[in-house]
Amino acid sequence: MNELLSATGTTIFTVMSALAVQHGAINLGQGFPDYDGPPDVLKAAADALMDGRNQYPPMTGVPELRQAVAAANKRFYGIEVDPNAEVVVTSGATEAITASLMAVLNPGDEVVLIEPLYDTYVPTVKLLGAIPRIVRLSPPKWELPRAELAAAFGPKTKAILFNTPMNPTGKVFTAAELAFIADLVTRHDCYAICDEVYEHLTYDGWKHIPLMTLPGMRERSLRIGSAGKTFNLTGWKVGYVTCDRALQPNVAKAHQNLTFTTPPNLQRAVAVGLAKDDAYFASLGAELAARRDILAAGLTELGFHVLPAMGSYFVTADIRSIGFTGDDVAFCRTLTEEAKVTAIPVTAFYAGENPPNHYARFAFCKNESVLREALARIGAWM
Amino acid sequence: MNELLSATGTTIFTVMSALAVQHGAINLGQGFPDYDGPPDVLKAAADALMDGRNQYPPMTGVPELRQAVAAANKRFYGIEVDPNAEVVVTSGATEAITASLMAVLNPGDEVVLIEPLYDTYVPTVKLLGAIPRIVRLSPPKWELPRAELAAAFGPKTKAILFNTPMNPTGKVFTAAELAFIADLVTRHDCYAICDEVYEHLTYDGWKHIPLMTLPGMRERSLRIGSAGKTFNLTGWKVGYVTCDRALQPNVAKAHQNLTFTTPPNLQRAVAVGLAKDDAYFASLGAELAARRDILAAGLTELGFHVLPAMGSYFVTADIRSIGFTGDDVAFCRTLTEEAKVTAIPVTAFYAGENPPNHYARFAFCKNESVLREALARIGAWM
Ligand SMILES: CSCCC(=O)C(=O)O
Ligand SMILES: CSCCC(=O)C(=O)O
Repeated sequence: MNELLSATGTTIFTVMSALAVQHGAINLGQGFPDYDGPPDVLKAAADALMDGRNQYPPMTGVPELRQAVAAANKRFYGIEVDPNAEVVVTSGATEAITASLMAVLNPGDEVVLIEPLYDTYVPTVKLLGAIPRIVRLSPPKWELPRAELAAAFGPKTKAILFNTPMNPTGKVFTAAELAFIADLVTRHDCYAICDEVYEHLTYDGWKHIPLMTLPGMRERSLRIGSAGKTFNLTGWKVGYVTCDRALQPNVAKAHQNLTFTTPPNLQRAVAVGLAKDDAYFASLGAELAARRDILAAGLTELGFHVLPAMGSYFVTADIRSIGFTGDDVAFCRTLTEEAKVTAIPVTAFYAGENPPNHYARFAFCKNESVLREALARIGAWM
Repeated sequence: MNELLSATGTTIFTVMSALAVQHGAINLGQGFPDYDGPPDVLKAAADALMDGRNQYPPMTGVPELRQAVAAANKRFYGIEVDPNAEVVVTSGATEAITASLMAVLNPGDEVVLIEPLYDTYVPTVKLLGAIPRIVRLSPPKWELPRAELAAAFGPKTKAILFNTPMNPTGKVFTAAELAFIADLVTRHDCYAICDEVYEHLTYDGWKHIPLMTLPGMRERSLRIGSAGKTFNLTGWKVGYVTCDRALQPNVAKAHQNLTFTTPPNLQRAVAVGLAKDDAYFASLGAELAARRDILAAGLTELGFHVLPAMGSYFVTADIRSIGFTGDDVAFCRTLTEEAKVTAIPVTAFYAGENPPNHYARFAFCKNESVLREALARIGAWM
């Protein structure tokens, strides 16, 4: 059997969600809302099932969704995109990331990654025969170590794969940081695969900036978005890659071998979603910021040192600040079993040796009552 | 960029479907029905969107679909399957094939393939760093060349990947052929990845036999099915792998990196479909056989030598028998442009040198009126 997969664990999200179910715990682990998507988007998906278009859609996506993705690029970021030649719809952002890596990498190529990172990045790079070069951000500031990042780029670098707004840190990369990255990508004549699934989930005036908007980056960036996070529909698995017309054919051909197409009714409904008014997109950040504040304030009141989150679904909390002496894995297990609340150990997002092991990630994309009950349970346990 | 993908063409199905649209041709190319799925399955999918379960389902599939897949294995073939440890639901059969290959192959492993073959097989094997060993079936009999097949297996063989009922040939492998394959797989201590998406689409008393039911094959087979072909819903992209509990974790971990999960509403609807009564499954073959007969008889009447099809959506016809002197690619292009009917050149299913180039594949999964109109157009053109 494949040795890399045999040596890989089941994803921490599945492991912790199963443990949550087993112990009747409130699941603040895996990042999914406990509220539903917009009613008009749900209805569009249901209606679309009933109008006789349930066969293979075009391989790169239904025209209305490709057009909606192009229009969203223009509307939110001023990026001009040809819907017919620069968009590939995928079966979720995970497939988008894998297809993008597959499109550009040859065996032996190096890929620069920034940890903490999503747990499919490194296994996928390795499965494609490429070599991960990992640069570490450390809590509590998650600062980009510029000299180390520059040193990770070299003659074999084919791409950087990174995530902003960032899971699990809640970091939103600044214009200055992005300019530094863009300069490295340009100088090393490589590509940037940009996982931007939390693009609309930013708080406190922080704004997401796609790397693609920086000088020289239009042709080098593969920008990945997802309906799951933008419409509270994580199960739908509709993602999209926006990239230059020179890159798009290889992404499409990777997609052709991975899933070939994505369900047309869900695609058509996501096109309806992307056309929603500005108030909808503004409300996403505003509502999540309120949820974040409830959870962060509650954890702080209980004695946790909670790190600031400018974007994403997540806050991270220092488990030593409440006097817990074990590591993050022990904490998340104990919290699930005893307090009946599930969080994710931040070490799960590090591929390198000796990661910081005293942080737990809590998802705040939950109803207020659920967040308050979770806080009450943690308080009672303490 | 990835050199294998850069050197690969866009799939013939997309190319020919685009050409069909461009010329207003009746599309008997890409294999999808022009009629819809069962109303109760469509309704189940629409209803499921409305009950608030649109977030990530379990990674290996929703319990009701895993149970339905296990039950279908038992009901149709007597295969006992543990729904919790021996099934992985995927985003279509294409992902199921890629995940199965990824689960078992290491770079440098050899994979035995039987051409004509589906056009993702060879590129996917190569993208994983493995080596295809291709054995050829030739028209008009598509007989399994046993000595050549035996010679293709060797010390580096990790798997055979094959398709029965077979696209594009319409061949249904016999018990004797499967026993020969099973013997090779056992003797070479390797795996069989069995693309059985047309399992319920067999005609004239031919019955599909899963290789997994042969002695010694239960532990070595990865059996792939798909809702698309079983419920006339090719756009839904819900597939499933059934395999031994020793293999399932690697398939699941491949799936985790490819798409992670598959839309829960479609999964739940497919579970409803798999529970349909025997009359439904019997009707699939009976209805398609009638469509096949219309197309095959019509083409024969026009002078084509049409090969028998015991299963699948397709018949193949000898283009020389009507005096066409160009190759199959020229024929399919001309037929689309001039007769306004699209077929697929059978050479597209061969990866090796000098394939037989005088056969065209016609899909008969179309309404009778469409088939008759296509025949009339071809007749008028001739
Ligand atoms: C795909 S499961 C994980 C969801 C997620 O993005 C997270 O929890 O980090
Ligand atoms: C996935 S597109 C092709 C559909 C099909 O199986 C075929 O036409 O052979």
